[in-house]
Amino acid sequence: MTPTSDVISSERVEGTAVYNAAGDKLGSIDDLMIDKRSGQVRYAVLEFGGFLGMGTDRYPLPWKMLNYDTAVDGYVVPLDKAQLENAPRYGEGEVPDYTNDYGRQVNTYYGVNW
Amino acid sequence: MTPTSDVISSERVEGTAVYNAAGDKLGSIDDLMIDKRSGQVRYAVLEFGGFLGMGTDRYPLPWKMLNYDTAVDGYVVPLDKAQLENAPRYGEGEVPDYTNDYGRQVNTYYGVNW
Repeated sequence: MTPTSDVISSERVEGTAVYNAAGDKLGSIDDLMIDKRSGQVRYAVLEFGGFLGMGTDRYPLPWKMLNYDTAVDGYVVPLDKAQLENAPRYGEGEVPDYTNDYGRQVNTYYGVNW
Repeated sequence: MTPTSDVISSERVEGTAVYNAAGDKLGSIDDLMIDKRSGQVRYAVLEFGGFLGMGTDRYPLPWKMLNYDTAVDGYVVPLDKAQLENAPRYGEGEVPDYTNDYGRQVNTYYGVNW
């Protein structure tokens, strides 16, 4: 058995597909939001929607909601598409100021407290 | 005073310049290596050397060695160029298997134990 590396490159995470538990592809990871002081990844930003790359939205997901599944070569999150419809989001190039309040809003939406 | 965001995008970190305490530019951040389980950024990978983008080397630096300095709009690390000459490195596209052993080798070189 090949030893599995404990770390992954940010460049490899970006672009990785995200599925829900039912196997629907929700989108792919566009970016990571990292706590400046601790270096902890707080949010993986899901790119979703749009057509031919235009007008896609960005959904920050708490990092710990993502589980990598080798079977689908992507992340699986416990969300259905309906839950994403009302989720905090922003347009491409409209990155919000991720102060504590914005992060809290995201965490509250998903019911997590990390 | 504008409230400062607590998080930073991986896309913004990538490409940020890295200086030593003497103000010499050492290179720029090419990539981040992230602990798969915890989401903690372990290493920022410094791109350094080469000519016109060819043959540059990659130096993984323990994340906590980097301090962002707004005055230079880049990271400052307590290293001089001579210390980088013997540091663990790899070529572009030759990402090593970052098992515990490789990480330990990097940490030992820089005298850190995170």
